[in-house]
Amino acid sequence: MTEPFRDTARPIDERVTDLLGRMTLREKVGQLNQRMLGWHAWHRNGDSVVLTDELDAELERWGGLGALYGMLRADAWSGRDWATGADPARSAEVASRIQERVRAASRWGIPALFVEEAPHGHQALGSQLLPVNLAVAATWDPGLLEEAATHIGAELAARGAHLALVSGLDMLRDPRWGRSEETFGEDPLLAAQFTRAFVRGIQSHRGVGAVLKHFAGQGAGIGGRNSSGAPLGPRELAEIHLPAARAGIAAGAMGVMAAYNDIDGVPCAGDRELLTGTLRGEWGFSGLVMADMFAVDRLMRATTDAATAGAVALRAGVDLSMCDLSFAELEQAVERGLISEQDVDIACGRVLRVKFELGLMDPPQPVPAFPPPAAELSQRIAAASLVLLHDRGGLLPADPTARVAVIGPNGDDLAALLGDYVPPLPDGMRGTVADAVADFVGAPMAIERGCELTAPIQGGLERAVALAAASDLTILVLGASSGRDYHDDFQSNGAARLGGAAPHATTGEGFDVAEVELPAAQRALVDAVTKSGTPTIAVIVSGRPLGIGSVAERCGAVVYAWYPGPEGGRAIAQALFTDHGFEGRLPVSLPRSSGTLPVAYNERLETTLRYIDGDAAADYAFGAGAQHGPVRFTDIVAPAEVGASELAGLRVDAVARNDGAGSASALVQLYARVRVPGILPRRSVLVGYTRVVLAPGEKKSVTLQVDADAVAGLGLRKGEVGSIDLWLSSTGAGDPHDPTTVRLRPITTDDTERRRRVDQHTAASARPVARAGG
Amino acid sequence: MTEPFRDTARPIDERVTDLLGRMTLREKVGQLNQRMLGWHAWHRNGDSVVLTDELDAELERWGGLGALYGMLRADAWSGRDWATGADPARSAEVASRIQERVRAASRWGIPALFVEEAPHGHQALGSQLLPVNLAVAATWDPGLLEEAATHIGAELAARGAHLALVSGLDMLRDPRWGRSEETFGEDPLLAAQFTRAFVRGIQSHRGVGAVLKHFAGQGAGIGGRNSSGAPLGPRELAEIHLPAARAGIAAGAMGVMAAYNDIDGVPCAGDRELLTGTLRGEWGFSGLVMADMFAVDRLMRATTDAATAGAVALRAGVDLSMCDLSFAELEQAVERGLISEQDVDIACGRVLRVKFELGLMDPPQPVPAFPPPAAELSQRIAAASLVLLHDRGGLLPADPTARVAVIGPNGDDLAALLGDYVPPLPDGMRGTVADAVADFVGAPMAIERGCELTAPIQGGLERAVALAAASDLTILVLGASSGRDYHDDFQSNGAARLGGAAPHATTGEGFDVAEVELPAAQRALVDAVTKSGTPTIAVIVSGRPLGIGSVAERCGAVVYAWYPGPEGGRAIAQALFTDHGFEGRLPVSLPRSSGTLPVAYNERLETTLRYIDGDAAADYAFGAGAQHGPVRFTDIVAPAEVGASELAGLRVDAVARNDGAGSASALVQLYARVRVPGILPRRSVLVGYTRVVLAPGEKKSVTLQVDADAVAGLGLRKGEVGSIDLWLSSTGAGDPHDPTTVRLRPITTDDTERRRRVDQHTAASARPVARAGG
Repeated sequence: MTEPFRDTARPIDERVTDLLGRMTLREKVGQLNQRMLGWHAWHRNGDSVVLTDELDAELERWGGLGALYGMLRADAWSGRDWATGADPARSAEVASRIQERVRAASRWGIPALFVEEAPHGHQALGSQLLPVNLAVAATWDPGLLEEAATHIGAELAARGAHLALVSGLDMLRDPRWGRSEETFGEDPLLAAQFTRAFVRGIQSHRGVGAVLKHFAGQGAGIGGRNSSGAPLGPRELAEIHLPAARAGIAAGAMGVMAAYNDIDGVPCAGDRELLTGTLRGEWGFSGLVMADMFAVDRLMRATTDAATAGAVALRAGVDLSMCDLSFAELEQAVERGLISEQDVDIACGRVLRVKFELGLMDPPQPVPAFPPPAAELSQRIAAASLVLLHDRGGLLPADPTARVAVIGPNGDDLAALLGDYVPPLPDGMRGTVADAVADFVGAPMAIERGCELTAPIQGGLERAVALAAASDLTILVLGASSGRDYHDDFQSNGAARLGGAAPHATTGEGFDVAEVELPAAQRALVDAVTKSGTPTIAVIVSGRPLGIGSVAERCGAVVYAWYPGPEGGRAIAQALFTDHGFEGRLPVSLPRSSGTLPVAYNERLETTLRYIDGDAAADYAFGAGAQHGPVRFTDIVAPAEVGASELAGLRVDAVARNDGAGSASALVQLYARVRVPGILPRRSVLVGYTRVVLAPGEKKSVTLQVDADAVAGLGLRKGEVGSIDLWLSSTGAGDPHDPTTVRLRPITTDDTERRRRVDQHTAASARPVARAGG
Repeated sequence: MTEPFRDTARPIDERVTDLLGRMTLREKVGQLNQRMLGWHAWHRNGDSVVLTDELDAELERWGGLGALYGMLRADAWSGRDWATGADPARSAEVASRIQERVRAASRWGIPALFVEEAPHGHQALGSQLLPVNLAVAATWDPGLLEEAATHIGAELAARGAHLALVSGLDMLRDPRWGRSEETFGEDPLLAAQFTRAFVRGIQSHRGVGAVLKHFAGQGAGIGGRNSSGAPLGPRELAEIHLPAARAGIAAGAMGVMAAYNDIDGVPCAGDRELLTGTLRGEWGFSGLVMADMFAVDRLMRATTDAATAGAVALRAGVDLSMCDLSFAELEQAVERGLISEQDVDIACGRVLRVKFELGLMDPPQPVPAFPPPAAELSQRIAAASLVLLHDRGGLLPADPTARVAVIGPNGDDLAALLGDYVPPLPDGMRGTVADAVADFVGAPMAIERGCELTAPIQGGLERAVALAAASDLTILVLGASSGRDYHDDFQSNGAARLGGAAPHATTGEGFDVAEVELPAAQRALVDAVTKSGTPTIAVIVSGRPLGIGSVAERCGAVVYAWYPGPEGGRAIAQALFTDHGFEGRLPVSLPRSSGTLPVAYNERLETTLRYIDGDAAADYAFGAGAQHGPVRFTDIVAPAEVGASELAGLRVDAVARNDGAGSASALVQLYARVRVPGILPRRSVLVGYTRVVLAPGEKKSVTLQVDADAVAGLGLRKGEVGSIDLWLSSTGAGDPHDPTTVRLRPITTDDTERRRRVDQHTAASARPVARAGG
């Protein structure tokens, strides 16, 4: 008779329970570990795939394998390249060979979960790379990401991988952070919508799931220093940092990754309230929680005992660890009574459940074919992500018959367009801005680097000035780069180590900066080149919001291009030389300098927004982006009153009018300010948006709705009364103008009730104050 | 028969209850208001004191007066000066004339509380000014402050004032903040000890009480922007921001001022959990809570209704407001049922209780005589506060017979030595650094300003260089200034308004900076002057920790002098030209630049302490200060194990040895790192300190104790187990070296108990996550 766990007709719960009952403690603990780096499990011998002794040893230790990270990863850290790694044609074979060995090592034939990095395309040879998340967010079009994620999922399925590690939960609250590019910006609504889209796309393929990272608050790390702690309170956490995760869970994400950082002293990987209370209790999550690489071992900063660290993480709600030594000590933790075997069963059940849900425990299905490249999609997203900061010089569209010079450290650098977490590209791939401009204008391109990203080049300024002077138009390509080099050093978790890194990298994991202003060497280049008098368009290629300072004044037009991916050069060239429209809008405020941080548009109200040495406001606001012609809103209609539970979907109608002389494509943004007595409002909160295209002088009705994903960010609590001011903007975030006020559950005329409610405001403002002393 | 409230033989509780029972609602609400600015209550007509109609109108409105703020204040904002204000000889008359009028206006003869600013000396004509708090903290000697505060209290008593507004609770977590000078630095233990000392000194006089400001968390305001919010969690609040207040309350402070800022969205003036739960419930405070000026009106950012704002503040625990319009609407709030009259009674009872406790309700006592000046004490504190950062050039003590030049924007500026919140000095007062050096060397002093604090002076650099070249020694006096000018503009709460201010001011309330590096104009002066080759001593006069950058390398010796007060010039001259010893130690980390913030020594552990553009660590560590000769610690003995409740007083013995060639005066600092599973430790926490003087080669036993005021900062919760690493340092904060581990309540061998405790670690880490949505 077939064991119940093999019976595909039975409900998954029954199959999990049955299988768990058959397993030894060691087998179960084995399911909770993901210790091997996947590229250590196999290597190539010419064209054949050879499994390693290290794999066999790990299989023997546990009688199976829970999960394998990065089996297909190819990059400078793994050292895998086109000569040694798994290209699309070989990947499914690698996966099936390893899986066969894993199944054979398990008394129950339990396969491993194959876990792969896919923050903006799968980090594997021959994958379709896409613009980084921050660029995608600048499109304000989650549909584009869903399309892209669907493609990523198809690639993963075709290679035999199961779980995609997907960034998106981190909020960009401090642009000094090197991982800024992995975020969807500073706004919880955008982050929530794009996270939903990412999950939907990835999980549209049978057998592929998304693991959302990082949970939670990592973007609030002090000093913008990677994985530093976030001494946040519960309101800040809930309103800013949790909505994206909540939305991703609601969209069905199979996994969540516990982050490195602590929140107010409690490391996420040991935070039971977060991983169990909020995630499972409040949100009903039933998938698996994976800890970030070595995050459980980092709990040993508070205890020198590995078993205790593992026990704390398991009890907090970590199901699957990555690389940690301490999680491998869970048997000892059971023996010592720090946890019970039942605790292990709960976690193991979740890991097994995901394997059942992904179909791994069912008879193998044929592997789908590798999808055709999606370069057109990648370019379409890049094009939609370009934000025009200004074209005061009226330089756009540029004349393709002019003598064009491409100058600057990012002008002819393909790696600089890609971002972090990328595989090596095929040899001979073209696509730099200079390549693309040359292709577009159909002439060889005059190119001069001028300076490195952070250092002058001997004679570079002089050559750049001479070239600009001899040209009709200068395209200055500036910014930053997450380029990694195969000669770099890496930390144990794969973050590049400073000092060993390629000298030009200024962003990406491990590349935090003290000063977010454009580096002095580039500012000097801008000053020198623009003095030539040649009209200059600046293109900022950067995964971090930079303080661009005088670039704005000195250049006739400025385009913020993020890391637009391998098709980004072509997208930029096309945008500059055609009537592009520039639909991208800033998903994050651009600061003046590090000294003015934080500058997020949705901080709470402040009374002082000036320093004696300058303005504290962002140089460019969240939601901003040049458009043709001013758009005005009139006849704004919203309900006078709603219950707080009816906020999602609340409708606002208005008339948009284009007062300008040109046609306008406006991103109409609906902002809110919540007024609940006793709680300080945020300056504004994005609650919805839509697009409208208007001919000169044209009027059109627009309808906006408060998005369900925006409600958490408003921070309302049950029973709270007050009001919400709503207003429209097509130029980005700021203070309210002509707001419409919607009352939330009015205060009744009953005095007792009134009194109760005032009490409630103050009581509802209760914040537990830690009890100190013993 | 005498009414019970007049009967001095009865307990105060009875007297308060009796009086309350006789008062109308309006009279009671009147006791809760402090609307008038005190200098509007009277003016001088030649030598006679004239009471104003404004005072009479206010008295008539309420049938009395709760409190009067700043009756004796003299400064640029009040406009009162030596011609129009109250000098010591006149102050008691002003007070008694007003009090007489107040009593007469009250059916019950209730006098007003006279509330005065006294952050570092009474802000009134002829008071003894002292170094600012940040300087006082650098002495690491709370006894000095107690002596100083005793003097301040004597002055207040002699002038007929009752409540001194005393800074000290704000923690210096962001040096961009203009009010940095008002803090006792970044460490909760120092802040707690100095706050205790301040309270003890002030309240050593009958009839004078201290109101501690600001409660709470104002030093954590985002961006270092004045009164901005602090999105903190409960652990960060309790461990860093509350210990000073807790200590001040334990020392008997009569009042606490609710701060402007919000904590995680809840404005302090509307925070019932803070003002009632923690302050009264947990700490047993029975004094009065005063709101900062217009802080209650600022609650109207969340409600447009003044009565609701007043009601929220009253219910939260504000007893007495300052200047607010909304707190004057409490009668309406009662009528509308937002609060009950009983709520008003509670607050009014607290105000009255303070009046009884201060003896205001008893027959008047003779006013004590104005104490003699305490200039010697002021100079002694200034001298003890000077921190020698280095004397690599061996320039100290300097030769008084050398040709000395005093150069720099603060070299001949007395106002720059004083700090914010000061009255005008008497005409003709000498005391600049240049004055004092001239007096010391007995020769006229060669002086050159060189530059303004933030701007060059035409020809200044050249003149400075020429002067330095012609001298044997240059004393470069650099830094910042809180100098105010009678031509300045002020905001409604008295903070100077940017733009209207004296152009040289760079610190003080309202003077936040984006960049904490020494301004470029001063850096240029340092570069130019030191190129002359003349030996140079830099003296940094600043109420803010500055990034001094190349000053450290270019100058042979560097002294950080804070705002040392009117005797500071003499203290500096004496220190430079005698064998001073320099006992001051940094009470705050000196950052490299704003881009590296935060840099406090007691942040939680981080993995990344570097930026790609430089180190993230402080340039100079908390606790640092040059000393003669290295001191080593051996034979460290501490108990192997204690209960968490026995931590206060825990004793650590060691042997200190002076390995250097000169004698050493060491400030021995005891640091701790707490290890509780599931909680990320802070890098280090100061728990005690002592001084030891050692001859060359000498060994001495030293004994340190964990100070009771340090325990709250360790963040231990009831029943927590773990361990504490302890180590000694005489050079300032840093990572542990040779730590001694003290176990806290060991894990028992009972498995159930062990299990329960692991649960507890994760459960104890519970942080309420705000419930969003409705």
